[in-house]
Amino acid sequence: MALNSTIKPIELIGTKVILIDQTILPNEYKKVEITNYKDMAKAIKEMIVRGAPAIGIAGAHGIALAAMEFINYDKNQFFQSLRQTADYLISQRPTAVNLAWAVEQLYEYALKLKDLPIKEIVANVVSQSKKMELEDIKINKKIGDFGAEIVPKGATILTHCNAGALATVGYGTALGVVRSAFAKDQTIKVFADETRPRLQGAKLTTWELIQDNIPVTLITDGMSGYFMQKGMIDMVIVGADRIAANGDTANKIGTYNLAIVAKFHKIPFYVAAPLSTIDINIASGEEILIEEREQNEVTYINGKAICAKGVNIINPAFDVTYNNLITGIITEKGILRPNYSISIKQAKL
Amino acid sequence: MALNSTIKPIELIGTKVILIDQTILPNEYKKVEITNYKDMAKAIKEMIVRGAPAIGIAGAHGIALAAMEFINYDKNQFFQSLRQTADYLISQRPTAVNLAWAVEQLYEYALKLKDLPIKEIVANVVSQSKKMELEDIKINKKIGDFGAEIVPKGATILTHCNAGALATVGYGTALGVVRSAFAKDQTIKVFADETRPRLQGAKLTTWELIQDNIPVTLITDGMSGYFMQKGMIDMVIVGADRIAANGDTANKIGTYNLAIVAKFHKIPFYVAAPLSTIDINIASGEEILIEEREQNEVTYINGKAICAKGVNIINPAFDVTYNNLITGIITEKGILRPNYSISIKQAKL
Repeated sequence: MALNSTIKPIELIGTKVILIDQTILPNEYKKVEITNYKDMAKAIKEMIVRGAPAIGIAGAHGIALAAMEFINYDKNQFFQSLRQTADYLISQRPTAVNLAWAVEQLYEYALKLKDLPIKEIVANVVSQSKKMELEDIKINKKIGDFGAEIVPKGATILTHCNAGALATVGYGTALGVVRSAFAKDQTIKVFADETRPRLQGAKLTTWELIQDNIPVTLITDGMSGYFMQKGMIDMVIVGADRIAANGDTANKIGTYNLAIVAKFHKIPFYVAAPLSTIDINIASGEEILIEEREQNEVTYINGKAICAKGVNIINPAFDVTYNNLITGIITEKGILRPNYSISIKQAKL
Repeated sequence: MALNSTIKPIELIGTKVILIDQTILPNEYKKVEITNYKDMAKAIKEMIVRGAPAIGIAGAHGIALAAMEFINYDKNQFFQSLRQTADYLISQRPTAVNLAWAVEQLYEYALKLKDLPIKEIVANVVSQSKKMELEDIKINKKIGDFGAEIVPKGATILTHCNAGALATVGYGTALGVVRSAFAKDQTIKVFADETRPRLQGAKLTTWELIQDNIPVTLITDGMSGYFMQKGMIDMVIVGADRIAANGDTANKIGTYNLAIVAKFHKIPFYVAAPLSTIDINIASGEEILIEEREQNEVTYINGKAICAKGVNIINPAFDVTYNNLITGIITEKGILRPNYSISIKQAKL
């Protein structure tokens, strides 16, 4: 079974980064060129590129673009500006740790080269960023292959938001598992939560799976229990934006409800994520900063208000799922199981 | 505290029924005149009027309109046509028992008058339908007053869909409890699930509460667990479309997820409904027929597709919440508690 793995939401080519504009899918498929770090920050903030692993690489490429922009600076100025750029990029999305992880990793890499001429530093930083990009797909394929082992024959997998090729450099985490499972067994099916407020499940997951001819049923976020009650869901697999040292997992708002509903029906609930999503500096989910986004994401859909004027809005972009609701965390080093404090520590060695 | 109880979504005046068109709220407030039973059936089907108690009265008024339309028939033809009309009206929405209950009640009432001249039968049927309309508000006020007793001071009440004045003849069931509680304590607040796919929470509940200056925060259906985890929700109150003899409750899709999430957080979960919503002919929720509605409700919002072409859709309009997730059922005869098989039997006597 050949799978279309050509969805490349982020690609560094020469001095440009090419993004798929994810704010206009599925109605329009358009690529945008990013040529400087400020536009990259904006693309991250406005979710032209989104998904924890993808915004990690977007952040790294933001550093690479900045390095090219600063190539004629003196060395002090270069590193000072690069540091400011790193902070600026990281501040665009506070919850996903991959962004900070990738930006800091590339910044540290640059620092280690500080005795080289700036032109060589820049060349190395750009090539390292490209290496990180290519590494992301390899990691996802490993996640997919480990995950595929625990997908029962003919399973219906429910997922939330988009943890697919579009959320990564390609292939996907949760949908990477789906792809690997489907490659072995074409009777696999997916149910996709639409994932309000931004509808990534409806807009991105359905589009992406249909590209690969994987059967997908779209449901509203309130329907999961209905289909579980009817025995139509075999497992849940979601992505992650930040995983604490104890396994508590921040992911797209609505994930926590889904995990509780899965637990109630004794349906396995898996998180699929690269190890870079695990933040061992954070003991539990309580310490994870949850981004709040603008009210319009809730009050407007397709340009039209859906509610009365005068309503209050709180719009958290993520929630935290307790570790005891999670059956396993599928990583590139295998599937981590409870007690997560131990299994995470071992995997991160 | 004076409350604006002037929201009247359904009103029989002379030979017409006046409805608030609930498909265009909150952007537009418009009344429509219904002058024949076929248009009433259409209004029920297309959800110009919706909410279990309201469609009950709409069904009764449909019979009243039909009786007026059939006034020159001979008696056999009159009753035969009235029976066909009853079946036709009931078939528009299969899940809410109030529709069948009210239509059958008025039909039976007509049958009992069969020895009178047709003109007198018609006059009596119309006046009985008006009586049922007025009775509905009284019932809601009783529900509201019983419910208000169990709302803690300053409570934040989460509700789903719209079980308000707009879902009844006025005042509301779940929102009737809110109104009665707010009349005593103006520190009460409401969180409203937006309630995809049709967004009745966003469109109707926010509009209705803002008319009465009751503070309301709109959230997406996936956010309830987030706010419960943060201790920001004190209780959940929802309406019902059909309650089985054992207390299992069919209500708007998403209610079951909400009940599970409330149980997980040990937050009280109440159903507010008139006794006419309880169908003692049905032993448990498994026997309740769940209406499936058209795909476009899920795939289009505000006239624009939200997903890729080729996606599968299943669109159940309701789900069934198990009785053991329900803390109490607030009725016009007081609050029913588990064991519901016993408390329901007593209340329905």
